[in-house]
Formats: sequence, structure tokens, C-alpha cells
Amino acid sequence: MEVLTSRKNPLVRQAAALKEAAARRREGLFLCEGARLCRDAALSGVEIRRCFFTRRAQERYGGYLEPVLAACREGYLVEEHVAQVLSDTKNGQELFCVCVLPRRDPREAPEGPCLVLEDVQDPGNLGTVLRTAEAFGIGEMVLAGSCCDPYSPKALRAGMGAAFRAVPRVAGDAGEAADWLRGHGYRCHGAVPDAGALPIDQVELSWGRHAVFVGNEGNGLRAQTLARMDDRVTIPMAGRAESLNASAAATVLLWEMCRKHGEENHG
Amino acid sequence: MEVLTSRKNPLVRQAAALKEAAARRREGLFLCEGARLCRDAALSGVEIRRCFFTRRAQERYGGYLEPVLAACREGYLVEEHVAQVLSDTKNGQELFCVCVLPRRDPREAPEGPCLVLEDVQDPGNLGTVLRTAEAFGIGEMVLAGSCCDPYSPKALRAGMGAAFRAVPRVAGDAGEAADWLRGHGYRCHGAVPDAGALPIDQVELSWGRHAVFVGNEGNGLRAQTLARMDDRVTIPMAGRAESLNASAAATVLLWEMCRKHGEENHG
Repeated sequence: MEVLTSRKNPLVRQAAALKEAAARRREGLFLCEGARLCRDAALSGVEIRRCFFTRRAQERYGGYLEPVLAACREGYLVEEHVAQVLSDTKNGQELFCVCVLPRRDPREAPEGPCLVLEDVQDPGNLGTVLRTAEAFGIGEMVLAGSCCDPYSPKALRAGMGAAFRAVPRVAGDAGEAADWLRGHGYRCHGAVPDAGALPIDQVELSWGRHAVFVGNEGNGLRAQTLARMDDRVTIPMAGRAESLNASAAATVLLWEMCRKHGEENHG
Repeated sequence: MEVLTSRKNPLVRQAAALKEAAARRREGLFLCEGARLCRDAALSGVEIRRCFFTRRAQERYGGYLEPVLAACREGYLVEEHVAQVLSDTKNGQELFCVCVLPRRDPREAPEGPCLVLEDVQDPGNLGTVLRTAEAFGIGEMVLAGSCCDPYSPKALRAGMGAAFRAVPRVAGDAGEAADWLRGHGYRCHGAVPDAGALPIDQVELSWGRHAVFVGNEGNGLRAQTLARMDDRVTIPMAGRAESLNASAAATVLLWEMCRKHGEENHG
């Protein structure tokens, strides 16, 4: 197996560049770091172009590396200083793979309950929400407006590989996403911090054909998006509403979508 | 007003030491950083011993500083290099106060729904849970076992001052906390990731006299704690349960306690 000793190796430079959004868009690739995430990518059927690892990673994470090597054509041993330029963390696991950005076929019809995020800026929040949606079995997700990239190193870490298994769709505009969903028979609910809106626990949310729209951490949904909703829903609170952060609010909304499914099944 | 120019000033050294848990315990004090947190401490009736701020902070955050200065006897202007030794963040706001650790009177009876955390290790998780509990109006909180300190700089930041307004109780042992709560007529529910336990949405959780126990991020509740619960509850999931992180699980449990209250009120 070839050992890469230089940070200036073109493959290393290309991989390191993928930490930035512009390079991911240009190349249609992303960089995945860490034993568990790389293994998850391989087992989830993500297309892996190549992987890089140090001898130390090979010794420590052999069981994780195996499915990665089986899934990709090119594996490279790298020296530790090379691993450093690829890493996004302080004490990384020195195991990386370059993967093809997964894409949803836009002609594929939406299925089951759907979460639409608009302008969510924080990659940690975005990853956490994708991870929670996966826990609750909600696999239809649309990222609209200026949402951050779910395939950035930080979003991938927070998401624990959820974006490999349920690939989010991307929409330029949340209003257009609403029209598209309605065209498939969905009702669109806009989440607002407004005590006058429909309490989410009292909204009929059967398992299919409901989409909940959640906006930016500080500003919520855009006015023009809210104008295209079928109704406005809210989380009724006995306490201090400003204390609920964006990802906690999304957790409650996802849970309510999931819980209503349970009620349907259990009677 | 006195200007402190040396990092070796005894007041500065004492304040900086409060970033560590041992010093907080020894002195019965904690250090609060940032314009909003310091103002929240003052407005929440936390006892403030003294505050430190740079001239820049005084110019930028005058409105926040005002209630702080009104609440404490001693205010000190400090030079920027002094503010650096007090700060726990990279680009801080150069505004700090030294506060007396709030304590609950252990003889005071518990009131309303209660969340008990056991061995929660991550200060970010702990702060987020306190913040979410406050959003849902749940003000009775017990930190048991080896929970981290809610008055560390990181937990305070994540908690947005929730620990000023609803002071958590501290218990050496979650089992003893359960006995104490039962002595006050509470039912104790242990949260477990076990599909065979009672689904939380089907547990009768009236607003008063119910306590939900949540364990460590990786290991859950200790066996001896679980043995002292009245029942075991779980979050039924349609998806991949391992994807639900500790603070998302706590959010769902807190919401269910809050939601049941709404149902009681609305019929």
C-alpha cells in the first residue's frame, strides 16, 4: 500500500480542501473523519472514493477500517503530519475518507412525515436535528433557504451519520418546497413562538402527508414562508419560552410527529 | 473607581480560580461571565460580591452593567490583559461577577413535577437540560451522583442563567433522592432505553408529585437507582434509538411532563 508522506500530495490537498463548503460544491465530494463515521458511510452505501489513515489508526481501528477498505478502491497510509492537515478536530482518530455527496432524485415523491428547515445556520444544531429525526424514524427532510451544509465536518460529527442514511433534499426556497409538498397531498405547518398559534400536541398529525417547517435559530421562519403555510403551530409552554433553543424545539416537534404515529397504531 | 492593572491582584486571582470546581466548593462562590449572564444573575436575586469589567465592556454593555453595579458593593475596572485571565472563552465580553453559590434549603418541601439527573457528565448537556426545564416551567430539579457542576463557566453558558432562577438541589445518591421524594408523596419514574418499559406518552403524569429520573449519557441510570423506582418509562421510537442523544431524550421527557399539565388544564 502506498504511503503518502507529503502534505502537498495532490490527493491530500484535494481532501483537505473539502473541509470548505465551496470545494464540496465544486467537486461534488465531502470529507468524512473518524472511525465510526467512516464505517457508517461504508455500511450506509455512501460512495467512497478513497480513504486515508495512519499506521496508528490501522492498529487501533482495524475493525472500523475493514468495511471502508472493502467499499473503496483506493486506500492510503499517511504520516501523522499529513493526517493533521486533513483533520478538523484536535485529537482526531487519523482515519478519513473522501465520499461522493449523496443526492436525492428530485423526481422521487416525498414519503411519510417531513421536516423542513429554513435558514438553520449552526452545523451543530443541524446535525443534532438530523440525528433526532432519525431516532424518531422521520426520514423525509428538506433544507431550504440558507441552511448550512449537512456534510461539513461539524454537522457530520453532530449528526452521527444520519445524513448518510436519510439524505436531506435541498430547496432554494421554503415556499417552493411547501408548494411541492402540497402537490403531493401534504399539509404544511409552520412552527412559530406565538402562544396564539395551534398547540402542537393538539394538531392532527397522522403519520403521512404532514410537513412541519422550522426556521432560523434567532429569527424563525421568513414572513413569505409563513404566508404559504396551511396553519401555524406552536409549543405551548408553562415556563419561560425564550429558554427553549432551536434544537430542543425541533426535538419536541419531531417527537410529536412520531408520537401521533404511535397513537394511530395503538388505537 | 479603582482600576486593577495586575493579574496578580488577590481579588483577580481569587475570581480566576473560581473557574475550577474545587475553588467553587471551597469558597462557596462562582464566577459569572458575559453581559447577559451577569445581568440575569443580578435580576434573579443572586448575591453578587463584586464585578470586574474593562472600559470597553463599560461602553458596550452599559445597560447590562447597570443592574449588576446596583446589586453589588464592589465594582472594579480591569485592564484587558486582566480580563483575559478571568475569561473562559476566546472572544469574551470582558464583564464578570463573583457570586455566592445559591443553595436550596434542604428542609424545603419539593413542589411540582421534578427532574432528577444522575451522573450527567457534560456541562453543555446539563446546562441545556436546565434551560429546557425552565422553558417548560419545571422548577424542581435534583442533581445526584457525580453530576457536573451547574455553576461551571460552560454549564452556565449553556444554561442561559436557568440555574439562577430555579436552583437545583444536590443529592449524593439518586436512591436517597427517590426515598425523599416518595416521602413527599411523589411517584418516581426511571427513564430507560428499553422498548419493554412503559411508553412515556402513556404514563399518567399529572402536574404535581411526579419525578422522572434520567441517567448518564452513555450508561443510563445506575442499577441500584433503577431498583428503587416505582416504574420504568421509555421513549417509544419508530426509528434508530441509538440516535437519540441524552439532552434530546431529556427534552422529550420534560415536554411530556409539561404537556400532561396542559391536558389537565384543557380537559
